Amino acid sequence: MDHRQPALVGARALPDTTQPSIGRRFMLSLQAADSPRFPTSGFRRWFAERRKRAFTVSRIPFAELDQWYFEADGGNLRHRTGRFFSIEGLRLEDGDRSGPDPARPIIVQPEIGTLGILVKEFDGILHCLMQAKMEPGNIGSVQLSPTVQATRSNYRRAHGGSRVRYLEHFTRPGHPEVLVDLLQSEHGSYFLHKRNRHMVVETTADVPEHEDFHWLTLGQISRLLRQEHVVNMDARTVLSCIPLEPAAGPDGAGFPDAVLHSLGPQAAPRHSDAELTGWLTSARAGADGSVRRVPLTATEADGWIRGPGSITRRGGADFAVIAVRAEADNREVPSWTQPLVELTGPAVHAFIARRLDGMLHVLVRASAERGSLNGPELAPTVQCPPGGTARYLDQVLQAPPDRVHFDVAQSEEGGRFHLARTRNLIVEAEDGFPVDQPEEYRWMTLDQLARMTRLGQHVNIQARTLLACAPSVW
Amino acid sequence: MDHRQPALVGARALPDTTQPSIGRRFMLSLQAADSPRFPTSGFRRWFAERRKRAFTVSRIPFAELDQWYFEADGGNLRHRTGRFFSIEGLRLEDGDRSGPDPARPIIVQPEIGTLGILVKEFDGILHCLMQAKMEPGNIGSVQLSPTVQATRSNYRRAHGGSRVRYLEHFTRPGHPEVLVDLLQSEHGSYFLHKRNRHMVVETTADVPEHEDFHWLTLGQISRLLRQEHVVNMDARTVLSCIPLEPAAGPDGAGFPDAVLHSLGPQAAPRHSDAELTGWLTSARAGADGSVRRVPLTATEADGWIRGPGSITRRGGADFAVIAVRAEADNREVPSWTQPLVELTGPAVHAFIARRLDGMLHVLVRASAERGSLNGPELAPTVQCPPGGTARYLDQVLQAPPDRVHFDVAQSEEGGRFHLARTRNLIVEAEDGFPVDQPEEYRWMTLDQLARMTRLGQHVNIQARTLLACAPSVW
Repeated sequence: MDHRQPALVGARALPDTTQPSIGRRFMLSLQAADSPRFPTSGFRRWFAERRKRAFTVSRIPFAELDQWYFEADGGNLRHRTGRFFSIEGLRLEDGDRSGPDPARPIIVQPEIGTLGILVKEFDGILHCLMQAKMEPGNIGSVQLSPTVQATRSNYRRAHGGSRVRYLEHFTRPGHPEVLVDLLQSEHGSYFLHKRNRHMVVETTADVPEHEDFHWLTLGQISRLLRQEHVVNMDARTVLSCIPLEPAAGPDGAGFPDAVLHSLGPQAAPRHSDAELTGWLTSARAGADGSVRRVPLTATEADGWIRGPGSITRRGGADFAVIAVRAEADNREVPSWTQPLVELTGPAVHAFIARRLDGMLHVLVRASAERGSLNGPELAPTVQCPPGGTARYLDQVLQAPPDRVHFDVAQSEEGGRFHLARTRNLIVEAEDGFPVDQPEEYRWMTLDQLARMTRLGQHVNIQARTLLACAPSVW
Repeated sequence: MDHRQPALVGARALPDTTQPSIGRRFMLSLQAADSPRFPTSGFRRWFAERRKRAFTVSRIPFAELDQWYFEADGGNLRHRTGRFFSIEGLRLEDGDRSGPDPARPIIVQPEIGTLGILVKEFDGILHCLMQAKMEPGNIGSVQLSPTVQATRSNYRRAHGGSRVRYLEHFTRPGHPEVLVDLLQSEHGSYFLHKRNRHMVVETTADVPEHEDFHWLTLGQISRLLRQEHVVNMDARTVLSCIPLEPAAGPDGAGFPDAVLHSLGPQAAPRHSDAELTGWLTSARAGADGSVRRVPLTATEADGWIRGPGSITRRGGADFAVIAVRAEADNREVPSWTQPLVELTGPAVHAFIARRLDGMLHVLVRASAERGSLNGPELAPTVQCPPGGTARYLDQVLQAPPDRVHFDVAQSEEGGRFHLARTRNLIVEAEDGFPVDQPEEYRWMTLDQLARMTRLGQHVNIQARTLLACAPSVW
């Protein structure tokens, strides 16, 4: 019997009436390693100048937070307007267990923000309008960000700041210029049910460039992804949603060619799309514990102690809650204070890749984080939090250099995390690496992972970052 | 600029290597109005016999509930094992408002159940193995149900009952015989974040028919959907996920032909798929209030009073919580007690349909219910709870008879709802009905609605029921 669903989610094959496709056009942009519009040499100068600006971020005691306070009843840390986010407690409940799981602090941010990249053709090549943006938790203060990166509190100007630049391009859902418009999850270990709207919008209008913005090709951005702490998390996750369609061609001998081939439509994958969606559905159906928001004080039972300037766990944890004051001259408001989550060390996220049936596959894991809205999503082979352990961590960290095709430290979101550093790796498996894996793992082509990403809320932020970085090995 | 995403979620068009497709095979089954395998005349006799069996369902005081109790702290109603479901409070929180929303009772059921239909070809026509199943809240005691309808508590035998029949066919996710495998939402007004797994699995094996089960074609089931309270909610929602692919052909003059045409791949829709997904993403991004589980006692402030045999709202509401004792001879266990939600009157769910550009479209609304996991989903034009009001309700209820193409009272899920009756309608709009509608509405073809349904968690249970019923007008 071979009557399978024709494709992911059984979408009908529609005729391709556009020539060339969006995927082909972005592929051309990826192949443009530099651009006369704004050459990379100029970028380096410009970006270094942004980083030299007068920013000060300093840790402060909670008592010096302005507008933020611990509620008398339950101790949640929140903003006086009720907006932005709050720090509360979260408890996982599983009917199978005898008692409740310990509660731990979690960021509650019900607002869905918009992460948007504006694109435009110059000389036939799509360019992305990227922003040099300061965030208080950023390593290097300024990182390369999407055109728009705003919560609703931002763009409703809850803090009384200036308007969000270029937002007007992202307010026409369903318009033909909207190339990507999806909700995606974010860091379920630290956020409760957090989602962001990811948009890519094409324009043909004249767009004046503010001094903090420049047009770059995907090829330029791809090279910047190889540098430490330059392209921020928000930019990486939007990039991961952009369709790429390499021309069909033979699989070259090298790893970079294999990556390109794996991104292409000619993929002969190990598992059909229907098999993979069934496997993820099964994982989601099996992970049906429920979570309960509890007061932050309920985390004390598990050792979480509020000191004058931090909430830390006796006995250790992967994070702490702290407070900072940020002073900058080019953000929406000149100075502010806020809480941040500080990770207690670097995280390690890695895909192990190997060729199966002549096609490069990555080993993906179906993995739930406690704050994930829809349960398990597709995660990297290795997703190791600060101070934690993970299967295949040693294989990844001890891989011979010629097998490590990507190894770059990047930052998590600087608006919520303080100097959070992740080592992102793509490692080619040794020949002896087992093809057969436990039930929670599956081998997928990059094309399958990319299409799952474009379903929205199927691939986690850690795997999306690695997907965004994969073309940069090429 | 016309470079749109090629299809829903940008899935690539894969070549159709199967002949005929699943959609064509199910279409053949829909066209089989009767079957020699189990003729409808025999079905009537068999079904009437099942309904005559000795079932007793009686309302009891909460104090007579066995294994169920109100927690001393907070008053939640739950099962001693912690399994099945609980009745708690839910409060909607919106940063824009000054104070919290009133809390109301909600069913919390984190377990993801499986609703599965086993299908098999007889004489070249797919048949569905359907069950005559008793549920305590069912109108008529027994209704036609999927092959498998089981929570994890059921199939882990938390109540010590007998095994779930035919479950073994639904435990191989990703196997080629799995034709549908999706998570779908359920009644966000009454359930917190409830999801069920929907599966359709084909078999070629010999399957012994238990006396409560029979093989029926889609055409037979479709005719039963025109009868009141015969096909249960669980069957309807699985049926809504089955792909149907009518042969291309001219749009006949009559409404039934227009329905068939609208289900087909040749649809020339009013809005592109990309427009519709962008519109829904926008609705979801805008509806970012958060919910908080609170103790059931917290609903007292809004007038919810616990009496000896019911939890009702002073001042009225669309539902109450009651308790029943059920005694039957062919369920997993012979007798049990449980809470149920009693709706205080009939609900009305209706699609208004009209031809646009020569193609039948239905008017869909993006609508959030407070317990919806992912925010707004696609809902019928009219979704009116008991005792409520809704835009276009009058147009639907006062439509001339020749415009009302479907008008059947059906039941909501009898395992959680007590005698819950919904009037489901499909009404053809008068010529004067406005094409331009408010932002929360969109005209869609049935093919678009069906493909959105097969994405999972995009179309709500009310709209899925109407989608499942639509082919029965033909």
